Amino acid sequence: MNEQASGHRAGPVRSAAARDAILAATARLFQGQGYDHLTIEGIAKEAGVGKQTIYRWWPSRGALIAECLTDGRLIPIDFDVPYSGDLLRDVEEWLGSVLAILETPHGAMLLRSLVAAAAEDAEVGDHLSASLGVDRHLAERLAAGIRDGQLAADAPVELLGHAVLGTIIVQSLTRRPDVAGALRELVRYLVAAR
Amino acid sequence: MNEQASGHRAGPVRSAAARDAILAATARLFQGQGYDHLTIEGIAKEAGVGKQTIYRWWPSRGALIAECLTDGRLIPIDFDVPYSGDLLRDVEEWLGSVLAILETPHGAMLLRSLVAAAAEDAEVGDHLSASLGVDRHLAERLAAGIRDGQLAADAPVELLGHAVLGTIIVQSLTRRPDVAGALRELVRYLVAAR
Repeated sequence: MNEQASGHRAGPVRSAAARDAILAATARLFQGQGYDHLTIEGIAKEAGVGKQTIYRWWPSRGALIAECLTDGRLIPIDFDVPYSGDLLRDVEEWLGSVLAILETPHGAMLLRSLVAAAAEDAEVGDHLSASLGVDRHLAERLAAGIRDGQLAADAPVELLGHAVLGTIIVQSLTRRPDVAGALRELVRYLVAAR
Repeated sequence: MNEQASGHRAGPVRSAAARDAILAATARLFQGQGYDHLTIEGIAKEAGVGKQTIYRWWPSRGALIAECLTDGRLIPIDFDVPYSGDLLRDVEEWLGSVLAILETPHGAMLLRSLVAAAAEDAEVGDHLSASLGVDRHLAERLAAGIRDGQLAADAPVELLGHAVLGTIIVQSLTRRPDVAGALRELVRYLVAAR
């Protein structure tokens, strides 16, 4: 049954289109101008909707950014960590995928904007960490490394993930030149069986 | 010779007072409202000077925050790392001083604001890292640990400092409850002779 054709119940369909337009506008403006210049008013104008339409679904620009992250509109979602049996190689492969996105000039700016957004809105921090696969995939891969005897039994797997993500963030905030090289060195120290 | 009394050369004296008023106003507003609501206009009003007076000395609000950091107006400067001969104990003592400042609700908000400021302005990131003693004191203490045979010879000391600072930042951005407990666990893993 085509409910649209009846003229009734068109609301949800329009809503889905508006939702998509709003998130697309958010992603476009955020990537172009960064978090500092992102306003609900600007997003409404870009999406061709009223500000109230946005506030009906999202309480803040941070909530919009968080949903863009979940939707994979800013960075690809759910970076997997492979399992080849070689812990260091697998973590380095994950790191390569993450840095391929974040180490370009555009990606570095995007990361800094996401960090600024996360500073204001806790949801963004959680979604950023989740999108990059830090909390789940990386922690699970490290835990498997403990089971395989390739990592110390007392290694704090979730914290090591945060240390890797945090180091990427610090290197980015202080505009270090060779983030990939530095992170490979750190990961070798953290992960290599010693 | 009192140059002020002569009525000449009062400029530099007035400038020093204006500089102090501007930095004090910046620190007060930043601590009260965070980076997001900080404007040059608001600082000028709070300090009782014109906007042009501020722009004559500082190109941006990030530069003002960086100078507030250098002056110790936001967090105490130059966190030392003691040397007792016991690397883990010394790093934990440094960590305790840093977290005593950053783990209060006010300190956590301040850290998030500094991270937001650093996302916009590279100078802030460098000054934040320097203020906490990460780049110099902590790296030097870790290097001494290598010489004392308490840390692996290939330990990347500067990167380990960034990993510790970065983990504090990630925990703060994702509003984790027990940052001190988590960091002690991480530092034990990173530093303990194994």
